[in-house]
Amino acid sequence: MIKHYYSYEEFREDLKALTKKIDKPFDTIMGISRGGLSMAQMFGEYYDIRKVYAINSIGYDDTRKLDEVKIFNIPDLSETKAVLIVDDIVDSGDTMVKILDILKAKYPNVMLYTASIFYKKSAKIAPDWFVKEPLCWIEFFWTVDLKEENE
Amino acid sequence: MIKHYYSYEEFREDLKALTKKIDKPFDTIMGISRGGLSMAQMFGEYYDIRKVYAINSIGYDDTRKLDEVKIFNIPDLSETKAVLIVDDIVDSGDTMVKILDILKAKYPNVMLYTASIFYKKSAKIAPDWFVKEPLCWIEFFWTVDLKEENE
Repeated sequence: MIKHYYSYEEFREDLKALTKKIDKPFDTIMGISRGGLSMAQMFGEYYDIRKVYAINSIGYDDTRKLDEVKIFNIPDLSETKAVLIVDDIVDSGDTMVKILDILKAKYPNVMLYTASIFYKKSAKIAPDWFVKEPLCWIEFFWTVDLKEENE
Repeated sequence: MIKHYYSYEEFREDLKALTKKIDKPFDTIMGISRGGLSMAQMFGEYYDIRKVYAINSIGYDDTRKLDEVKIFNIPDLSETKAVLIVDDIVDSGDTMVKILDILKAKYPNVMLYTASIFYKKSAKIAPDWFVKEPLCWIEFFWTVDLKEENE
């Protein structure tokens, strides 16, 4: 399969592009772990927000797709007005849909926004803001850069 | 003040160096938000661990030092045996000491390990593993790379 190596430099440019699109205020950032964590960190620095949290999902297991997406490690948003939920890619959309459902039920008064770098048109949900469509398999730098064969 | 721009390339090499030092098993990774989140993500990928969480602290406010470090967003470790707590820098050590105190009290049976890229010898605590000592002010790529003046 054709792979595209997604470098840190491309990531940085895409995050800059996202910051130019995001046009709503928020006071909390939630990165979907693991893919959204670097993004959450850099947005936290950029927007000067310290409430940068993780939320976890298990769905993909790289090769097989589990029947249901399981969400865990849900942060306390009781003092949050608006949260930006970030992920590297909205692929099937299963994870994002499930997270939004859970957060809406638990925190009906919190505004929920979503942003991702990549978004597949076939996904069940579109993020509020995204940068581009994946045209082939994306090999993210955070997945491969520490491995010996990539030295 | 002399500043050192800490690039993604240096970060990647330092994380590789850390993986060669870390010699204990763990099943959970906790990044101290915000500084430890990218590191937590990349270690999660490297060690194939999906339980990658954030824990938050407020202490530094860039210019002033608050009297006390406040820890919040503490993840549920009830199904964890050993956790690797990661941060970019152990500076005063206040944050790491406070986090260890809280986790030891709440989860006395969980093994707690700590790793950071930078460690100041004057800190109250040394992480189990670290890479180097900061010789001047470190300007981390995640802090400056999205800002316009750095384009």
